Amino acid sequence: MTARGFDRAEYVARVARAQDLMAQAGLAALLLTTEPEIRYFTGFLTRFWESPSRPWFVVVPASGDPVAVIPSIGAALMAQTWITDIRSWPAPRPEDEGITLLADTLNALDGPVGVPSGPETHMRLGMADIERLRAALRHPLRADAGITAYLRAVKSEAEIAKIAHACQIAARAFARVPEIAAPGVPLSRVFRDFQRLLLDEGADWVPYLAGGAGPQGYADVISPASDAPLRAGDVMMLDTGAVWDGYFCDFDRNFAVGAPAANIAATHDRLLESTQAGLEAAQPGARACDVHAAMAAVCGAGEGAGRLGHGLGMQLTEGLSLSAVDRTELRPGMVITLEPGVDTADGCILVHEENIVIREGGAQVLSPWATGLTRIG
Amino acid sequence: MTARGFDRAEYVARVARAQDLMAQAGLAALLLTTEPEIRYFTGFLTRFWESPSRPWFVVVPASGDPVAVIPSIGAALMAQTWITDIRSWPAPRPEDEGITLLADTLNALDGPVGVPSGPETHMRLGMADIERLRAALRHPLRADAGITAYLRAVKSEAEIAKIAHACQIAARAFARVPEIAAPGVPLSRVFRDFQRLLLDEGADWVPYLAGGAGPQGYADVISPASDAPLRAGDVMMLDTGAVWDGYFCDFDRNFAVGAPAANIAATHDRLLESTQAGLEAAQPGARACDVHAAMAAVCGAGEGAGRLGHGLGMQLTEGLSLSAVDRTELRPGMVITLEPGVDTADGCILVHEENIVIREGGAQVLSPWATGLTRIG
Repeated sequence: MTARGFDRAEYVARVARAQDLMAQAGLAALLLTTEPEIRYFTGFLTRFWESPSRPWFVVVPASGDPVAVIPSIGAALMAQTWITDIRSWPAPRPEDEGITLLADTLNALDGPVGVPSGPETHMRLGMADIERLRAALRHPLRADAGITAYLRAVKSEAEIAKIAHACQIAARAFARVPEIAAPGVPLSRVFRDFQRLLLDEGADWVPYLAGGAGPQGYADVISPASDAPLRAGDVMMLDTGAVWDGYFCDFDRNFAVGAPAANIAATHDRLLESTQAGLEAAQPGARACDVHAAMAAVCGAGEGAGRLGHGLGMQLTEGLSLSAVDRTELRPGMVITLEPGVDTADGCILVHEENIVIREGGAQVLSPWATGLTRIG
Repeated sequence: MTARGFDRAEYVARVARAQDLMAQAGLAALLLTTEPEIRYFTGFLTRFWESPSRPWFVVVPASGDPVAVIPSIGAALMAQTWITDIRSWPAPRPEDEGITLLADTLNALDGPVGVPSGPETHMRLGMADIERLRAALRHPLRADAGITAYLRAVKSEAEIAKIAHACQIAARAFARVPEIAAPGVPLSRVFRDFQRLLLDEGADWVPYLAGGAGPQGYADVISPASDAPLRAGDVMMLDTGAVWDGYFCDFDRNFAVGAPAANIAATHDRLLESTQAGLEAAQPGARACDVHAAMAAVCGAGEGAGRLGHGLGMQLTEGLSLSAVDRTELRPGMVITLEPGVDTADGCILVHEENIVIREGGAQVLSPWATGLTRIG
C-alpha cells in the first residue's frame, strides 16, 4: 500500500537542497506562484487551482522554512502541511491582491528574489500585479537559475512510488478497455468510459486523456474525441495522464478493433522496438539527445520524431525532452516517458508510450511493458 | 440536443467586438497566451494544455482575422477551427520557443500590443521569454485595458446553452448520489464515484470536485477528500465543476447522512433563503456588491461571506465576485454562481451554490433550484 503524502523530512531535504543552490546563485529567496512549485516545497494539495481568481505565493528564504502568503480561503488547508508561517489576506481583493503582504515578506530578506523563469515556467500573476510587486520590492526579481526545475527533475523513492502507483492504476484500466470499446461505439463514449475505469481502478482524478482512431492511426495526439463510431479495421489509441496523490502516469496503448490493416501490426512492432532501444539507452550519464537518437534510429525521423519522450511527475510533462537538441544528462531518479511515433499513411501516425525511471545499472520500467496490439471487438 | 462547437459567426462577432474596443484603447493587437483566451477567439479545444512544455500564442490584430502562432503539434487541430493563418515552429525548442515567429507577426502590425494583465490573468510564458519578446518587439507590451475579460463576461445564447447543458449533467449525477454514499463509505470513495457518475451522465471531463463531511459541515471547500468514512449524522457536501464542450457548471449539494444535527437543517434553509435573495437581487444594472449585500443580509457576514458567488463559463470561476467591494454592473447574459456560506460550529461551515444567468426582467436559473437537504443512508 503506497502511503499518501510525504514525511516532513522529504520537504526539509527539498528546502535544504534549494538553499544550497540559492547560496551558489546569490539569491535571498525563491518566489513560487504555480501549483507544482508550491506543492513541491509545501505539500499543499488541492484542485482549487482550477479557479484563477486568487494568486498564491510561497517564499523559500535563503535560510529557514518556507513562508506561505496565500488567500485566507486556503489557510486552514495550508496549516495541515508542515508549513507554520502562513500569512493570508481576504482574496479576491483586486486593489491589493496580496502584493503588499508579499512585498513585506520579501523585503524582510536581504537580496535578490529568484523566480522560476525558464522553459515550462510562468508567473501565475497578472502583469499589472507583477509591476506592482516589482515597484514595492527593495531588491530585483531575477531568474531562479533553474533551481526549482533542476530539483524537481530527480524524484525521491517516495515520489517514484506514487508515479508507479498511478501507472498501475492506468494499467488495470487499460486491461479493461475491451469492456468499453467495440465496433459501433463512438470514440467519445470510449473516452468517457475510460475515465470512469481509471477512477474505478483508483485514480484520484483524470486531468488528461487523448487518443484517436482510424484505419491508419490518428492525425495527432491532442484532439478531443469525436462522436464517430469505431469501425472494424481501426487502430484506436488511448493516452492518459491519471493522477494519484498528486503524481501523474503518462502512457498509452493501441488497440486493434477487429483485424488491423496489413502495415499496422508491423508498424506497432517497430514502435515497441524503438521503445526498447530507448529503455536500453536510458543509462545514467547518457544525454536526452542520445536516447532520442537510439529511438529515432529504429522508428525513423518522421513528423512524429520531434520529441520522443519527456520528463514526468507532478505534471503530465515536465523537464527534459527526448529530442535531438536536448543535451540534459540523465540522472538516477529521473522519471521519463519513452514515446516514439511513426508516420503511417493518409497523414496519420501511430504513437506508443511507456514510463521508466532512470537507475544505476539500467532503467526500471514503471508502466507494464506492452508486448503488442490488444485485439478488441 | 445542444450542439458542439460554435458557428463561425460567433467568432467573427467576438473578434469584431474586440476590435471596436481595441480601437478605443489604441491597441494594434491583442496577444493571448492562455487556454480560455485562445479558445474564446479561435475555438481551439484540447486537454493538451495540461502539458506546460510549449507556449501557444494567438494574435488578434486591429483589423483582420486572428493569427495562431503555435507549436507544430497543434497545427492540424487548429486548422479544424475557423482560423486560417497558422504559423508554427517545432516545439519544444528552448533556444527560440516561438519568440522570433511571434515577434515577426507582431512587428508587422503598427502599434502597441495589449496583453490581458488584470485580475485572474497571467502570461503563460516564462519570464526569460517575456524579456526576449519585449526586446524583439518594435512596440511595447501594454495592458489590454480589460478587453478580453469584459467580452468574456457576457455570454452568447450558444454559450449559455452549453453551461446549462453542463448543469443538467451535474443535476442528474447529484440525483444519483444516494447510489454511492452511505454511512461507512469513505469520502474519497464518494469523490471517485461521483466523478464516475458525472462522466456517465455526459460530462466530457471533471476538472473540479471538492467537498467535505462532518456533523457540523466542513472546514473549507477546497480540501481533497480524506479516507474517513461517512458517519450517520454527517452533512456531506459535493461541489463540482464538470465540463461539457469546454464550458463549466459550478454548483454544489448538501446531503444529510442519516438524521442531521438539530441546527443543520435550519442553517441549510437559511442558505437557500440567501440564494433566493441573491436570485431576486441579480437584476441587470445591479452591482455585484448589491447582490452580495442582499445575500449577506440573510446568511450573515461570517468567515464564509467574503465572496458569495462569482462569474462562470469557460473557467470554473471567472469575472466578477459577489463581494462587498466588487462594483461590477450586472449585464444580461452574464452567468454567475450564488454561493452563500454560513458558519456552523466547531470551526465548520455550510455552503450552498446555484448557477444563474442574468436576464432582462429577472435572472434565469440554470442549475435545478435545491429545495432542501437530500437524505441519504
